[in-house]
Amino acid sequence: MTETIVLPNAADVDLAAKKLAGVAIRTPLVNSPVLDALLGARVFLKCETLQRTGSFKFRGAYNKISSIPPDKRAGGVVAYSSGNHAQGVAHAAQLCNLPAVIVMPSDAPQAKRERTAALGAEVVLYDRDTEDRAAIARGIAATRGAILVPPFDDPMIIAGQGTVGREICEDLEKLALKPDVAVVGVSGGGLIAGIALAMKARVPAMKFYSAEPEGFDDTLRSFKNGKREVNPRMSGTICDALMTSMPGVITWEINRKLVGEGVTANDAEVGRAVAFAFRELKLVVEPGGAIGLAALLAGKLDVRGKIVVAVLSGGNVDAALFQRLIGS
Amino acid sequence: MTETIVLPNAADVDLAAKKLAGVAIRTPLVNSPVLDALLGARVFLKCETLQRTGSFKFRGAYNKISSIPPDKRAGGVVAYSSGNHAQGVAHAAQLCNLPAVIVMPSDAPQAKRERTAALGAEVVLYDRDTEDRAAIARGIAATRGAILVPPFDDPMIIAGQGTVGREICEDLEKLALKPDVAVVGVSGGGLIAGIALAMKARVPAMKFYSAEPEGFDDTLRSFKNGKREVNPRMSGTICDALMTSMPGVITWEINRKLVGEGVTANDAEVGRAVAFAFRELKLVVEPGGAIGLAALLAGKLDVRGKIVVAVLSGGNVDAALFQRLIGS
Repeated sequence: MTETIVLPNAADVDLAAKKLAGVAIRTPLVNSPVLDALLGARVFLKCETLQRTGSFKFRGAYNKISSIPPDKRAGGVVAYSSGNHAQGVAHAAQLCNLPAVIVMPSDAPQAKRERTAALGAEVVLYDRDTEDRAAIARGIAATRGAILVPPFDDPMIIAGQGTVGREICEDLEKLALKPDVAVVGVSGGGLIAGIALAMKARVPAMKFYSAEPEGFDDTLRSFKNGKREVNPRMSGTICDALMTSMPGVITWEINRKLVGEGVTANDAEVGRAVAFAFRELKLVVEPGGAIGLAALLAGKLDVRGKIVVAVLSGGNVDAALFQRLIGS
Repeated sequence: MTETIVLPNAADVDLAAKKLAGVAIRTPLVNSPVLDALLGARVFLKCETLQRTGSFKFRGAYNKISSIPPDKRAGGVVAYSSGNHAQGVAHAAQLCNLPAVIVMPSDAPQAKRERTAALGAEVVLYDRDTEDRAAIARGIAATRGAILVPPFDDPMIIAGQGTVGREICEDLEKLALKPDVAVVGVSGGGLIAGIALAMKARVPAMKFYSAEPEGFDDTLRSFKNGKREVNPRMSGTICDALMTSMPGVITWEINRKLVGEGVTANDAEVGRAVAFAFRELKLVVEPGGAIGLAALLAGKLDVRGKIVVAVLSGGNVDAALFQRLIGS
């Protein structure tokens, strides 16, 4: 059986931008003379840390949820996530006046559970060792008629995240600048897929690099081997936002064509990037949100003389971890 | 003897904006749905934390130093400060290719001394208990032919800081919004004076409030008593950027006419604002830079239904203090 997959394109990102206008924060694209001097490049950082719920995830979630037709809204939405996607879905559903159920592991930090609940969602806990969260979510979808909001492998989600890239292009155009390179953190690959769709449509010569934690480089290995590879483990990085087992079906189809290359950074490099962002940029970035910056600071890419874009994709970091990282 | 003082005006701010274009960072004006919901207002935060050297001080320093005529540049510039002004002057002089001497207390944190020196300045230390920093700076100015760059009481400095207000107006105009209220931290009063000059020229009905640490409210008491008042002490607040003995001559003339009202916040309120900025805004703000936000969060002003501007004026906070404040 051949499965047909629907790939989103730059026009879908334009439609998403219309839906998100006046709802999502139009986050600033900032630069730092200190960073430029360090790298010998002109680096622009897209601050999705300042997005609603503290990460880009709100964009895709809102694009998806606001597009649910009236006759399918009664059952609400369901999603599984212990992190940024949970909050993005909860808040988007809240703004759309739809009930939301978020399936979270019972050992998720209390702060994240409370924050998700504060955004109006019903939190359903599961046991990470004995239960299957996807099965639980599908069960809720079936019994309640709720619509599942996947974290990345969905055309509407990808198109929503793509508005990040659309805004970057608009802001650089105002400065009469054309980007050469973008480095974007990858978990399932929805963010980089959307951004690449939006930016390559405007600047076809641009090069994209995925950035992943060392040991969780399923996308990079997939690029090298020409097929979707799996991560050997699902814990052991401070980048809690970047632990997905393998690339999505849709994201892989987009990223193998538009991205194709990648870099990694280890925990120490990521920690230094978080501390650099605190000290020099005055921005709070979570480890997973700093991975592109970490790769740049660690010299993983030669960007001298180039116009470089990195996405600071989220800022939801516990105080205790942040305290530790900025103290080192 | 009657001394004539030269007061800057909105046209001087326009000239400063031309000088600073392409040199100073055009810092973003951000908003937070969480903050808006908390205060029942639309609040816009001007992120001078993201300015060169981590505070607004660069603007005034660059406006002043870049205006020194060629025949007076050989002796360089001199300033006294242990904090943000030191870095602003050092960096502005560096960009203008002028030598800079910064007079700093011998007990200033090593990080601040090193950072000032890294910006190319010569650091001259003095003993806070036995020596007079102003006299030392005047001596250097006399012997070297250096031009003194005062921290606030100078028309060019005030006009430079005013570009903060000019940019806020431009950004709000793009959103078709007219500000009602602004809350700005005050030490010597240069920042609020410049901002009020720029913004009141565009929105005459706007109200301005100074924000000062409890016990260091010389400007607020000056407003109440109709004359320049002095702070009883010069230590004892976490807002190290906001400890000046009294309003300036020029800043007082401007602020008594354009501002006239103020609020205070204590250390606990400021600490909570720094933690709020970390947790909800994902911004690193130093205590003195958070005082306006602190006053708003503590309910010192009734802003319900209003369009409110607060300036996050700096982000130069030591890791140890930041760790303490976000942990509480």
